[in-house]
Parts: sequence; structure tokens; C-alpha cells
Amino acid sequence: MLQKLKGHWDYVSSVAFSPDGKLVASASYDRTVRLWDAVTGAALQKLEGHSSSVSSVAFSPDGKLVASASGDRTVRL
Amino acid sequence: MLQKLKGHWDYVSSVAFSPDGKLVASASYDRTVRLWDAVTGAALQKLEGHSSSVSSVAFSPDGKLVASASGDRTVRL
Amino acid sequence: MLQKLKGHWDYVSSVAFSPDGKLVASASYDRTVRLWDAVTGAALQKLEGHSSSVSSVAFSPDGKLVASASGDRTVRL
Amino acid sequence: MLQKLKGHWDYVSSVAFSPDGKLVASASYDRTVRLWDAVTGAALQKLEGHSSSVSSVAFSPDGKLVASASGDRTVRL
Repeated sequence: MLQKLKGHWDYVSSVAFSPDGKLVASASYDRTVRLWDAVTGAALQKLEGHSSSVSSVAFSPDGKLVASASGDRTVRL
Repeated sequence: MLQKLKGHWDYVSSVAFSPDGKLVASASYDRTVRLWDAVTGAALQKLEGHSSSVSSVAFSPDGKLVASASGDRTVRL
Repeated sequence: MLQKLKGHWDYVSSVAFSPDGKLVASASYDRTVRLWDAVTGAALQKLEGHSSSVSSVAFSPDGKLVASASGDRTVRL
Repeated sequence: MLQKLKGHWDYVSSVAFSPDGKLVASASYDRTVRLWDAVTGAALQKLEGHSSSVSSVAFSPDGKLVASASGDRTVRL
């Protein structure tokens, strides 16, 4: 079953699953990180704050934190 | 033993092994994600649907899902 | 709680959590790799030595080593 | 102790540790993947065969295989 997760309005640069497999995080040049339900594909959260494109995203091993790297020279948790 | 997996017709941007080590997923600017048998190198599946280059690919921890990020602004599962 | 980790003065290309989840490493085009406390967000260390932008960063499985790849054609441990 | 692993003659795009932490693999625009001893930093192997820049590298979960993605449109194992 192929699911298309829509929401980002620019290039999506990186994806990562949470360690428990329940969430997908995506980083985009639209300056946001989005969290999705990996089973239903539902959009759960939009993490804003970066002032430039987001290049990379990673979950912490316990799945409670998401780190994102950006062209705005900051890392966000 | 070096195996060359042929099929993509444009730049291959990212590779990932499934958690059980049996599959390799590759993302390409040819707009597809391909799944390969990690042992034999056989092409198993071509996942289409993206309308632009695919930048990143990841397996879920249970190996049942593949998420891909694309320049077409969507994430696919 | 959204934390903004400031320090890099150029594009941040990659982030990674240490296996124990206590550290975040970030790679930047400012030629450094920085280590951050994943809980408090405090800047812990600045790893210099690359003479060009850093493209990728990874922790070893035991969390004791950080490898970085750079446009200066070297890998650092 | 900072170690500088020299050998690549062009941009290094990606690094990865083997699951046992003993090896580091690096992918480079010089068309090779190189394997290094993660403890001593010694160059162990140069994997050639790609006819274009290598964008991404990954170890299999058992550490016995390395997959690499390239601009030459192929994936290598």
C-alpha cells in the first residue's frame, strides 16, 4: 500500500523512522520538520522555527527527541 | 564479491539496508525507489509514484515499510 | 520544548544522536563538528581540523568515536 | 585523539561505522569507497568499480556487506 504524505511545499531532503517505527519525520527546504503516523500516514505535527532549509533529521534512540540541521546555521531539538 | 545492481537510469542518491539485512533500498533521481536482494543482487521491486527526484530512503525498524523523500514535496510510505 | 543550538556560522549539513541519546553531533560547512548535550542543549565541544566543509557525521556504535567526512578529501575520527 | 584518514583525492560525501564499530566506510566523489580501521585509522581497502561520484554508503546489519550509491546510476554491494 503506497501512501503519499502531503504537506511540505518544497523539496523534502531527508526522512527517518522513530526507533519504535510509529513515526516518520521529514525535513524540507520549506523550513519545517513534519511528523507523520507511519501506519495511517496522518500528519501529526509541524515543527517550525528554522529560518532556512532543513537538510537532515534524526530521532534520538529513545524516540523522544528529534534533531534537525539547517541552512540557518542552527541545530534544533 | 563485488556486485553491480543495474536498473536506475539516473543519479542514485541514497542506499539503506533493511534491519534483517536481506534487502537493499536505493533512491534515485530517476523518481523511483528500488528494492534489491542483498545476497543475490536481484532486482525485486520498483516503487514508483514520485514525480521528482528521490533524495533519501529509510526502512522502518520492523523492515515492513520504506519511507522516501522527494523533490516533489511529498513523503511516501 | 524546542531548543535552538547556536554556534555554527555556516550551513549545517548533518545531525546524529549518540547511541545512548545523550549527545548530538552536527556537521557544518563552517568546517567544524560540534557536540551538544541532547538534554540541556549546551555546547560541549567543537571539533576542528577539517580545511573544508563537513558533509556527514556518524557516531560509532559504542558512542566513543565520531567520524566526519569533508570536502577537504579526508575522514576524521 | 583526532585522526586524519588520508587517501581520497576528492570530496568525501558520506561516512558510516560498521555495526561492530571496528570499521569506517567512506564514500567519495573520487569514485571509490574506502574502508578504514576505526581504532588505528589504517587504510584497509579501496573499493573501486563506480564510474562516477559515490553519494552514499551503508553497512549491512551483520557488517559483512557495504552498499554504495553513485552518480553512475548503479548500486554496488
